[in-house]
Amino acid sequence: MSELRRDPIVGRWVIIAPERGLRPHFAKVEARKNSKIENCPFCEGNESKTPPEIIAYGAPGREPNTPGWDVRVIPNKFPALRVEADIERLGFGLLDKVSGTGAHEVVVETPRHDITLGELSEDNITLVLRAWKERIIDLDKDDRLRYALVFKNKGIEAGASLPHSHSQIIATPITPMVVKEELNASKEYYCEKERCIFCDYVYQELRDKKRVIYQDEHYVVLSAYAARFPYEVWILPKEHLADFQLVSDEKLYILAGLLKKLLGGYKEILGDPPYNLLLHNAPLRTPRPGYWLTVEEDYHWHFEILPRLTRVAGFEWGTGFYINPVTPEHACKVLKKVFK
Amino acid sequence: MSELRRDPIVGRWVIIAPERGLRPHFAKVEARKNSKIENCPFCEGNESKTPPEIIAYGAPGREPNTPGWDVRVIPNKFPALRVEADIERLGFGLLDKVSGTGAHEVVVETPRHDITLGELSEDNITLVLRAWKERIIDLDKDDRLRYALVFKNKGIEAGASLPHSHSQIIATPITPMVVKEELNASKEYYCEKERCIFCDYVYQELRDKKRVIYQDEHYVVLSAYAARFPYEVWILPKEHLADFQLVSDEKLYILAGLLKKLLGGYKEILGDPPYNLLLHNAPLRTPRPGYWLTVEEDYHWHFEILPRLTRVAGFEWGTGFYINPVTPEHACKVLKKVFK
Repeated sequence: MSELRRDPIVGRWVIIAPERGLRPHFAKVEARKNSKIENCPFCEGNESKTPPEIIAYGAPGREPNTPGWDVRVIPNKFPALRVEADIERLGFGLLDKVSGTGAHEVVVETPRHDITLGELSEDNITLVLRAWKERIIDLDKDDRLRYALVFKNKGIEAGASLPHSHSQIIATPITPMVVKEELNASKEYYCEKERCIFCDYVYQELRDKKRVIYQDEHYVVLSAYAARFPYEVWILPKEHLADFQLVSDEKLYILAGLLKKLLGGYKEILGDPPYNLLLHNAPLRTPRPGYWLTVEEDYHWHFEILPRLTRVAGFEWGTGFYINPVTPEHACKVLKKVFK
Repeated sequence: MSELRRDPIVGRWVIIAPERGLRPHFAKVEARKNSKIENCPFCEGNESKTPPEIIAYGAPGREPNTPGWDVRVIPNKFPALRVEADIERLGFGLLDKVSGTGAHEVVVETPRHDITLGELSEDNITLVLRAWKERIIDLDKDDRLRYALVFKNKGIEAGASLPHSHSQIIATPITPMVVKEELNASKEYYCEKERCIFCDYVYQELRDKKRVIYQDEHYVVLSAYAARFPYEVWILPKEHLADFQLVSDEKLYILAGLLKKLLGGYKEILGDPPYNLLLHNAPLRTPRPGYWLTVEEDYHWHFEILPRLTRVAGFEWGTGFYINPVTPEHACKVLKKVFK
């Protein structure tokens, strides 16, 4: 059984998950490759190789766990956290832990093995976004859970273990530290100014123009001011909204179009780089400890997309301090072209 | 010229360093290899391939920048920060920046190309530790600088760009966020309890025994309670001390012996894994803004050593939440053997 532990000094949580399958005496970083379609558990026709699906979008009348789907959500076969685990919160002196209660799901983004998220049609990308939204709404019903993180690792360098295009959702019984920092920062700002810090940031960037890659009526695509990675991009809704799961399907379709352009641009300009895509979303609402009482007003959902062209090394670990060799202003100029 | 920028939301600082030499249209993560001794700027006899040395320990009467040294400290040829840059702190609305004033130095740990830090003699490892200490003392004299981070990246997966054994020192004009969090946490604890949180942590672990890999009169070697990485190890002095640079040379020698054992153990058990070694040290003292007024009493220097056997992916970036497949208690059992 996995458990969550809190670092006694800084409060960073980790998941200790012995069943995640690494042998104790493994010798090297394993580059797990599984490019043969007959062995790929995410390929159409191989539905029996995964745990039974949670939801899927496909042809009307399709039987669960059979071909004919466009997007399919399944439990992770090697979950870091499990819904079945009873919740237990324990402390002994300085050392805190929580049982490994939670959810770990995989969103298979396409039945085809040879296609990436950015190559899907706008309709199909919209289905992926809808699956994320639907899963967050469902996980929010479990009052043991505090946060649902939606993320995508593309490419081995970005942490993907299978090449077939997929994203993941991990729902945790505590609010992760990085999330809490962002929530606290936006809450403090709101308390002081009665304005959302993200709205102010977008406003300033739209005035300043130097880092605005693209904007339309609903969204703004920014080259992040303090980008950790070359070509790091944030996509924010112009309308103030804390929760991604409240975005209408029409606006998800527009968002899908922007993602398609951006990912296509990465491929064209950077040569199909590995990347991480993160949904920064408000915490789940059913339980509501102190920190985010005003979250509807002070938080603002957004995407952060991090191409992994540079390595993260000791300096970054030690200081939370990244070295980025490409100026965000240059990245903006380059990426602007793909939105034309 | 590089500059430091602060993320407007969470306050994370990054260094935007266009001169670090990555072309804007690079296509892949570059595995920079330079294993030929004749081309290696860190090999004995190639002293002219580096900027002039800052300090070196070697044979008496040796001329600077000639062979005959054991440890050699040089400026980084592609520095993220520069001492020559005038300090300038600017803000515009939500966006803050600081000029790239600082230092970026390389500690070449041995004249030999084919030997790792853990394979050096205890005397030679002591010289490396002495170089770190001496450089911190010197950098502390520059009152524009706030923090000196000493770190080592071993192996490409850990971020090393050259294979010849070396460590680095980066001194920054702001206190990095991760450092500030640790300083603030230990300060808050001290304000409340009038005890050092690290001393309390060591005390609890020594009582609990399950994660104590080794202890002697002066140091304790711990399998970290909330280890982010498999076999993550912390080495702490038993004596409360905020500043590494105040450790006596005799105690550095004992520390060198522990490092040698640990690194030898990693090699034996994990097959020479990539790792990051971080010195967590108190901030430089000349300038003293609010956060660490009591730092002598509330902070406690230590090493954190992170083998890089697992990949860090989207989940970790998004949440600061690591998944570690090896329990710290198991890692302790395994590593104990190498200290016998």
